[in-house]
Amino acid sequence: MHFVAALDRVPEMRGVLCLFEGVCSGAADGYARALGRPASTLLHLGPGLGNGLANFHNARKARSPIVSIVGEHATAHLRVDAPLTSDIQTFARSVSNAVRTATSADDVGPAASATILSAWGPPGQVAMLIVPADFSWSETTVLGAAIQPPVRPVPEVSHLAPLLRQPGTAILLGGTAVNFRALEAAGRIAAATGARVITARNVGKLSAGRTTFPAPQVPYFPEGALPFLADVRNLLLVEAERPVSFFAYPGIPSYMTPDNCVEHTLATRAEDGAAALLALADGLPPAKLPSVAAPEAPTANEALTLDFIGLSVAALLPEHALIADEMVSSAGKVLGHLASAAPHEFMPVTGGSIGQGLPVAVGAAIACPDRKVVSLEADGSAMYTLQALWTMARENLDITVIILANRRYRILDIEMRRTGAKGFGPSSNNMIDISRPVLDFLKLAESMGVAASRATTARQFTDQFRDAVAHRGPRLIEAVIA
Amino acid sequence: MHFVAALDRVPEMRGVLCLFEGVCSGAADGYARALGRPASTLLHLGPGLGNGLANFHNARKARSPIVSIVGEHATAHLRVDAPLTSDIQTFARSVSNAVRTATSADDVGPAASATILSAWGPPGQVAMLIVPADFSWSETTVLGAAIQPPVRPVPEVSHLAPLLRQPGTAILLGGTAVNFRALEAAGRIAAATGARVITARNVGKLSAGRTTFPAPQVPYFPEGALPFLADVRNLLLVEAERPVSFFAYPGIPSYMTPDNCVEHTLATRAEDGAAALLALADGLPPAKLPSVAAPEAPTANEALTLDFIGLSVAALLPEHALIADEMVSSAGKVLGHLASAAPHEFMPVTGGSIGQGLPVAVGAAIACPDRKVVSLEADGSAMYTLQALWTMARENLDITVIILANRRYRILDIEMRRTGAKGFGPSSNNMIDISRPVLDFLKLAESMGVAASRATTARQFTDQFRDAVAHRGPRLIEAVIA
Repeated sequence: MHFVAALDRVPEMRGVLCLFEGVCSGAADGYARALGRPASTLLHLGPGLGNGLANFHNARKARSPIVSIVGEHATAHLRVDAPLTSDIQTFARSVSNAVRTATSADDVGPAASATILSAWGPPGQVAMLIVPADFSWSETTVLGAAIQPPVRPVPEVSHLAPLLRQPGTAILLGGTAVNFRALEAAGRIAAATGARVITARNVGKLSAGRTTFPAPQVPYFPEGALPFLADVRNLLLVEAERPVSFFAYPGIPSYMTPDNCVEHTLATRAEDGAAALLALADGLPPAKLPSVAAPEAPTANEALTLDFIGLSVAALLPEHALIADEMVSSAGKVLGHLASAAPHEFMPVTGGSIGQGLPVAVGAAIACPDRKVVSLEADGSAMYTLQALWTMARENLDITVIILANRRYRILDIEMRRTGAKGFGPSSNNMIDISRPVLDFLKLAESMGVAASRATTARQFTDQFRDAVAHRGPRLIEAVIA
Repeated sequence: MHFVAALDRVPEMRGVLCLFEGVCSGAADGYARALGRPASTLLHLGPGLGNGLANFHNARKARSPIVSIVGEHATAHLRVDAPLTSDIQTFARSVSNAVRTATSADDVGPAASATILSAWGPPGQVAMLIVPADFSWSETTVLGAAIQPPVRPVPEVSHLAPLLRQPGTAILLGGTAVNFRALEAAGRIAAATGARVITARNVGKLSAGRTTFPAPQVPYFPEGALPFLADVRNLLLVEAERPVSFFAYPGIPSYMTPDNCVEHTLATRAEDGAAALLALADGLPPAKLPSVAAPEAPTANEALTLDFIGLSVAALLPEHALIADEMVSSAGKVLGHLASAAPHEFMPVTGGSIGQGLPVAVGAAIACPDRKVVSLEADGSAMYTLQALWTMARENLDITVIILANRRYRILDIEMRRTGAKGFGPSSNNMIDISRPVLDFLKLAESMGVAASRATTARQFTDQFRDAVAHRGPRLIEAVIA
């Protein structure tokens, strides 16, 4: 309550209300990904933090800096096992190694400074500050120190240069080393040396589009990733780790690189990988980009497919848009088209916690009010944190949400087959089918103040998406997939 | 996946799909409260469990038996830090002391039996079983033992009988000792000895209504609870603990009983408090119940108030209904009227985690298909786990949801004053105001397949609630409070 009250005295802090803590934690992640700076969340005791954990898990895997403040009972009240009493430290440690509890009113300021310092890293992390209520309502004159953003060291990499010209060498870009600058340098290195340049899946924000050097991502499923990496003998890791399978499957290895591949660290997560690449690329001629034309937006009166959606988004996406992705099973077909879109930045699911997409879009739109945010979202995952729509309307955020409605937890069909579980009888099928009743995303969006429309043909989708990107403010398109 | 697939081979297990894990955990709590038997939840790794923690916290405080199964990566995959890898044990320990991880395929059955045994208690608890994927997909012929419900011992209490006639003696009923049988026995003891009978706030399910012995609950706020308990010198605890304040406030004690009050344990949480009361009441004449008439349902064309809602529900509530309560700031005025309602059972918020009400109603309706479930819910708290509405429609559950829409986090106005935080400037006020945009609960309900109506007058509310209780199936009434 005292933190909320203080918003009237500290206009530099902008308070944004979300109706569920999972929206707060995901929005803080989106803000951090978009700007590379921490946002702060204010959550209410253990259960409030509990509701935020799933998206903090994704933020942790994205290395997003977040300052998470959690209110706690007054210290004297902790001994009595009140209804809301819980072990907040245990909640917090499930997603963070940086957990602090303020020890007095005088400690709140310094502990806040230390928490901000922890959040910055590098690499960024979810830093937790637990504040007992009595330290909020007691007097103090002690302020915390101002914290400066850290400068990441540039590693010395010249000893790795000879590897670049060896056959079977690949450079794996991850962390922050997937921005335009890093990709451009990597492209020059690839052109001059023959080394392959590939990107990790588990990055917070990736530059993409038709004027960006195309560095293919490690495929999601092992049957794609294993052949993709089979010939790699030297893997140069730039803010990245050795690629692993998302899930384990019977008889399939966890690591995706072959046993005879040697990993070399070009830059750690704490170092400036882009600067290291620029040092290696110094003096090399520019890389030639493949000539990719912008596609035409489809206008056929045909049933809407994922390909049509991908083409339409690729044709109409505004320059410098931010894409928040949580398409899950629909991702493959849509993303294939986005390489021909205008230059943009793409924010994937990093930790596999469902319910990331809409909140990350909220945070990105708050961080970058001058850029269009497009949320590519599945119907199943949208329902985890749908309350984000209300904050989009309340703050008039410039977000276009596209719900890819296949009315099924389609990814579970895929995993059911892959794990050999053979569950396609009526009872198990019923656990994957979300068509009964059909979710009406128009009413859902309108109930929270977001204008919405439904597209069932390619032409409808193109018309609606063109209209959405032409106007500022929140908008939802329910794209019903044939 | 293998658990889901197994539903086709084990028809005794009924799978119920929820669109968010917080709905699953709350529904399991509601099932346990309604029937006193465990339900099982199936959640997906750490983040899936994380989403369920808030309602598991409430279930823990209600002593609800729950068997929580959590899928984990295959054991060999844990060493590679895959995207979804997290410390599930740490997630689980934040709400449970009974956390098991299956150690082999042969151990899954016995570990499941041990988990069910832990869940039963007594007292009931949230028992966790973590199952690595490879133990699900490997062969075994080992089955777990069948588990019988425990028989709770009846404590010897005759030595406490002399206390009952002393001035300043009160009997505090909690746990399961707040059912019709326990309250009737307590009423006989009160009539014969002069001891006061009061009930704890933190119970999973309370019998109430006009033919039930009225045992007043300890008031929520300290300024009510402290005078309520000021004269108590001997407090006999029946499956209950010494009352504490929900929150701490500057200058107010945490314990609500006076320092010169002595607590005596009549029955622990693991014992049968009702049987102990019956033993004490043996041979005593029946207690005289106050003569309470059923009220008339209000039909005035006046703006809807909390009193009108309380009167209408009290007048029209079907016998043996189950009420799931999450009214928060609206509770006081509505609940005052329910003592004159038909006999019913009342399920309050136990742990203070928000988002309990709708999921608990789901679980109670699944447990007791022949009883009407009424969900008395606030607009702010409803938005935490609103996905419960979809499961109500999907399973055609006999639930009437009443949304008390005051369009504000009203409880925060109250707490803001109580903590002395003085936050009523525009920025902090904005964090409490949920009227911008107005949440349209009709569209929200209809988007998930639940029929809905809006009431703004007493007559409208009475007409709509009468209609809702007269028909089977899910129904939502948005009660807009003047």
